[in-house]
Amino acid sequence: MLRIGMLTSGGDCQALNAAMRGVAKVLFEKREDVEIYGIEDGYKGLIYGKYRLLTSRDFSGILTIGGTILGTSRQPFKLMRVPDDNGIDKVAAMKKNYKKWKLDCLVVLGGNGTHKTANLLREEGLNVVTLPKTIDNDIWGTDMTFGFQSAVDIATNAIDCIHTTAASHGRVFIVEVMGHKVGWLTLHAGIAGGADIILIPEIPYDIDKIAEAISRRDKAGKRFTILAVAEGAISKEDAKLSKKEYKEKLKNRKHPSVSYELAEQILAKTGKEVRITVPGHTQRGGAPCPYDRVLSTRLGSAAAELILDKKFGNMVGIVDGEIKAVPLEEVAGKLKKVDPDCSAIREAKNVGISFGE
Amino acid sequence: MLRIGMLTSGGDCQALNAAMRGVAKVLFEKREDVEIYGIEDGYKGLIYGKYRLLTSRDFSGILTIGGTILGTSRQPFKLMRVPDDNGIDKVAAMKKNYKKWKLDCLVVLGGNGTHKTANLLREEGLNVVTLPKTIDNDIWGTDMTFGFQSAVDIATNAIDCIHTTAASHGRVFIVEVMGHKVGWLTLHAGIAGGADIILIPEIPYDIDKIAEAISRRDKAGKRFTILAVAEGAISKEDAKLSKKEYKEKLKNRKHPSVSYELAEQILAKTGKEVRITVPGHTQRGGAPCPYDRVLSTRLGSAAAELILDKKFGNMVGIVDGEIKAVPLEEVAGKLKKVDPDCSAIREAKNVGISFGE
Amino acid sequence: MLRIGMLTSGGDCQALNAAMRGVAKVLFEKREDVEIYGIEDGYKGLIYGKYRLLTSRDFSGILTIGGTILGTSRQPFKLMRVPDDNGIDKVAAMKKNYKKWKLDCLVVLGGNGTHKTANLLREEGLNVVTLPKTIDNDIWGTDMTFGFQSAVDIATNAIDCIHTTAASHGRVFIVEVMGHKVGWLTLHAGIAGGADIILIPEIPYDIDKIAEAISRRDKAGKRFTILAVAEGAISKEDAKLSKKEYKEKLKNRKHPSVSYELAEQILAKTGKEVRITVPGHTQRGGAPCPYDRVLSTRLGSAAAELILDKKFGNMVGIVDGEIKAVPLEEVAGKLKKVDPDCSAIREAKNVGISFGE
Amino acid sequence: MLRIGMLTSGGDCQALNAAMRGVAKVLFEKREDVEIYGIEDGYKGLIYGKYRLLTSRDFSGILTIGGTILGTSRQPFKLMRVPDDNGIDKVAAMKKNYKKWKLDCLVVLGGNGTHKTANLLREEGLNVVTLPKTIDNDIWGTDMTFGFQSAVDIATNAIDCIHTTAASHGRVFIVEVMGHKVGWLTLHAGIAGGADIILIPEIPYDIDKIAEAISRRDKAGKRFTILAVAEGAISKEDAKLSKKEYKEKLKNRKHPSVSYELAEQILAKTGKEVRITVPGHTQRGGAPCPYDRVLSTRLGSAAAELILDKKFGNMVGIVDGEIKAVPLEEVAGKLKKVDPDCSAIREAKNVGISFGE
Repeated sequence: MLRIGMLTSGGDCQALNAAMRGVAKVLFEKREDVEIYGIEDGYKGLIYGKYRLLTSRDFSGILTIGGTILGTSRQPFKLMRVPDDNGIDKVAAMKKNYKKWKLDCLVVLGGNGTHKTANLLREEGLNVVTLPKTIDNDIWGTDMTFGFQSAVDIATNAIDCIHTTAASHGRVFIVEVMGHKVGWLTLHAGIAGGADIILIPEIPYDIDKIAEAISRRDKAGKRFTILAVAEGAISKEDAKLSKKEYKEKLKNRKHPSVSYELAEQILAKTGKEVRITVPGHTQRGGAPCPYDRVLSTRLGSAAAELILDKKFGNMVGIVDGEIKAVPLEEVAGKLKKVDPDCSAIREAKNVGISFGE
Repeated sequence: MLRIGMLTSGGDCQALNAAMRGVAKVLFEKREDVEIYGIEDGYKGLIYGKYRLLTSRDFSGILTIGGTILGTSRQPFKLMRVPDDNGIDKVAAMKKNYKKWKLDCLVVLGGNGTHKTANLLREEGLNVVTLPKTIDNDIWGTDMTFGFQSAVDIATNAIDCIHTTAASHGRVFIVEVMGHKVGWLTLHAGIAGGADIILIPEIPYDIDKIAEAISRRDKAGKRFTILAVAEGAISKEDAKLSKKEYKEKLKNRKHPSVSYELAEQILAKTGKEVRITVPGHTQRGGAPCPYDRVLSTRLGSAAAELILDKKFGNMVGIVDGEIKAVPLEEVAGKLKKVDPDCSAIREAKNVGISFGE
Repeated sequence: MLRIGMLTSGGDCQALNAAMRGVAKVLFEKREDVEIYGIEDGYKGLIYGKYRLLTSRDFSGILTIGGTILGTSRQPFKLMRVPDDNGIDKVAAMKKNYKKWKLDCLVVLGGNGTHKTANLLREEGLNVVTLPKTIDNDIWGTDMTFGFQSAVDIATNAIDCIHTTAASHGRVFIVEVMGHKVGWLTLHAGIAGGADIILIPEIPYDIDKIAEAISRRDKAGKRFTILAVAEGAISKEDAKLSKKEYKEKLKNRKHPSVSYELAEQILAKTGKEVRITVPGHTQRGGAPCPYDRVLSTRLGSAAAELILDKKFGNMVGIVDGEIKAVPLEEVAGKLKKVDPDCSAIREAKNVGISFGE
Repeated sequence: MLRIGMLTSGGDCQALNAAMRGVAKVLFEKREDVEIYGIEDGYKGLIYGKYRLLTSRDFSGILTIGGTILGTSRQPFKLMRVPDDNGIDKVAAMKKNYKKWKLDCLVVLGGNGTHKTANLLREEGLNVVTLPKTIDNDIWGTDMTFGFQSAVDIATNAIDCIHTTAASHGRVFIVEVMGHKVGWLTLHAGIAGGADIILIPEIPYDIDKIAEAISRRDKAGKRFTILAVAEGAISKEDAKLSKKEYKEKLKNRKHPSVSYELAEQILAKTGKEVRITVPGHTQRGGAPCPYDRVLSTRLGSAAAELILDKKFGNMVGIVDGEIKAVPLEEVAGKLKKVDPDCSAIREAKNVGISFGE
């Protein structure tokens, strides 16, 4: 008997179901004696012993369905070693359930935080195989994460919608794009949406350069300007602060997000009122795009292969078009950022996109 | 020679170009001696004499393009009789340009405010034909305005995206939908998106009933609740205020919109954190949906017929599936609201949707 | 105890699930003692006794899912009175199962054929309530059927795609649109997609007029022409044939559909090669559009109300925006066609669309 | 003065305009003295001297527009050295116009045939830079071509639509996907759409294995089977024929395409009727997806850089995420096929997809 626990952790995104379907289809195809424990609400279910047995039927028809059939929850890595309100040792509880259920392997789908915990469980002796899920595309060891391209589609669509309105009214618009501390999503949606200015955390912005770029468009007779702004965009001044100072500053920020601060500054510098649109959580919802369905199916399939080959302790990633097994210890704790000197940025600058520097 | 002035006024929306194309195609088809003056940026262009002559080529390929090729601007009706900063009498200026350009008719595409000014120009002796454009669907005299169904599609899509996220995380989510002072857009997007609670201005809400509805879902084992909330939603208490008092209250509101106030109240009543998504201006942008393309083409075609038949002073509307001419004096100054006792509301309630009352 | 049988019959379309969800939500909301018999594969399941009991869970999350959770099959009305291969009397079998299951009412979702059989069952003494489902919009007694607008969206999207290709290559393209013997779908998709020529069964075409329309565009410097052709489009000559003669002719037609015959004739008359695209079954598949979700939810809700009020023998329809109960005996056997003199056709002609006459 | 000729050749596809915009934006940004000759209808325009000067305005707003603003035509490579009907030497004519217009470089966007001619022009001494455009993704030297992902989206959407219908009716469906002689498009759309059987030219099929796969699904209680079939799919028997024999066979084939032959054979082997859907030309039309907009903008930007650096005789391609210059002589005449042993195929097989072998 092969017993597999499966869980999705952290913020949900598109193609989680598609990826789990990929894993399950292979296991049910190759082995007659497989049992899949669907662990509910992420690590929480593993800690508190909540699961349901999943049959091949449960994975049928979910290729195109957003969200996760298992539910998810955020379990901060830094609290994993801290007992919960009832004094329960979380890591011990997870190990206990893993053993109680006689699992042969735990399949974990998640982002950066999730991978840190997955690596911890590996260190604690559990067999773990992981899949890189996030709209942020910030997981080290894989060129691409599933969820990313679907989110690009949604954010781009938002910019497209704003484009017609901005052009009709001759306005300055900010579209605030998700992505946590990295700029992948904003960079791609910004280029795809034809944004005039793209601000990402990896390239701290200078408000004067932004004002200049807007004025230049004005002088060229362009009636409007669209900024694609990463939620994690940061000014040149703030980038000089220590991590602690910056956190403190964010906490006391009077604006709900960086876009509102920017809008105020642009108004002050250019006299132009700025409208803000925040697609927000829509960026992680809805059906996965075909690109993500292919990627997640391939990754899921490869993850199952790792399990069958007992190659535990790995994340499946895609590198130069090929699916690879990447040791969890290499993945955990790293962040894949946009290189400000990469060719994509240079090509974007060449077509006239300003990065506010 | 037939000389037609054309302008789009107020907030832009989908299918403005499609409607203008409809008008122009008929005129160019039926008459060889037609000149179309494309007046720029709404009434502003008419006041300050900004236009460009449009050929049949200008209307080619714009059926599917969002926004307006003429540009638009908001010109509050109540300021029409007030001279501008340079002392220019706006109404007189518009009449002067109309005469200077020897226009036979002015085609105006806009919403409620726009129609008030159009009626004013009619009273001043200009030949005017109008088309009902707005995502709010609040124009009296027509069952449907173009822009509305396209906006329903976008708002519904936002709810769809939030649905998968809400279900995965077991959360309460508010999606704030546009619509000014009426609930059409929220009602339709709410039903289409499967919202559990729909709040519209026409049915003032009771926060206790909302909390009850959320708790009832909780008890039934539903892990999440989605609220579609009109930007103009109002509480039972506030609905009792005078218009002036309410305006005052809104001005001093510490929250950016009603949704944030609601979220706070729901947290207080149920202990549940509420996430908010505001699709905002995306709802009026992007390509028109096929429904709107048909409606706007038909309305545009009928408007041209009115012009050719010299039936001025009318808006073209659709009533029970037929295009009708509706006298401008009947349209101006009215608001088409959702009737709280209409069958659509009853049907929605019967499927278990709460309207917070 | 309230026992409801539910079945979907005929070709599937979008929003069938949404409509059934509407019915079920009301019943489960209003009555504690309801049992829903999900009859499988249309009337076939009623004849052969195949069903499964459906709980409120089965209707959860299906608002946006295309197809039908019950399956469907085509059961020609004219064979209903003819015993099957094993000599089983179909009508008697259906009555028997209805009684055996102690049903209080049968909810039937289907198109024209389905409604004839539903009326037959009513005549046979069964309690029946029906919902008008078809992408063809050809059901008498309702302004609109669900599935229609979703199919318009898909067919329009196909024309949009062809538009860019036709323009790039300067070609004549036919997009063949579904709709059986009526032209609703082609008319709407044709207008929405900006087709230059629209051919529908209600307006028999003259190949010379089509050739003329293409040449006229040529002379006007338009490089391409797009025809939206209903699968049931018919030439002026063929329209003069008796029904029997025409059927015979169709049977011996060497072309797979009318579009191929047209393409040949256009080539002969104009020397232009014509490309053909047939979106086919895609037009009835995929997720329902928001318009259809609202319509089907409202119709489903109203159908449940009829059941609770014991107003059997009716179809729920929408007339001038209001949901109405329409006696089945009035619906059965009729076909709602496009009136060639209706205002939509006139408006379409005025913008320069040729109907080939 | 920098004079650039630009042309699009072969079948049109999505993102052609986006790519040209990328090239032009860089040139207008970096150089004040640039003239862009928009050569009309592909090589035809270069042969017969048809062009128009393009300004930066012409490239504005076309990022999201499908097709090509320049028009295109197919000019078979093998006829390039053959004089036209009027005895004109095509290659000489192209060289003559290139010189007459004093072009510094010719930017060519096209697929495999186009690249052969581009290389010929390079050999003849013209400065040429090319961009890889095709929905087939079969151009050697680049991991990805623009148009491909947009076509995947459309083909996948067709399969999605068919999925709900197939499931509702319990049918076998073939969706015929474009791709000429390679299987990239079918492979990706097939995986993304959840096809049960995928047939591509690179893996000749055995009709008995296909029948087996269908029967296996039958026995497992799956009511339907979906086949994604490449237009270039080929049987094991036919794959043994010489190129000439196979061409001959195709010419005499009684079916319009391989899908119809397959349908007949499946019926014969399994007794199951098969429905066929052919999305056809829709796959190359409509707006480019965000992925393609990013790719084409980047490639366009890089192509402009090559021009400014006078690195002629190259195609811009993307290899392992980086844009590269690939010598035209290496590209011309090669075909990038799917490797039957690649990991994507293995992963697809592992999830249970049959390739008919």
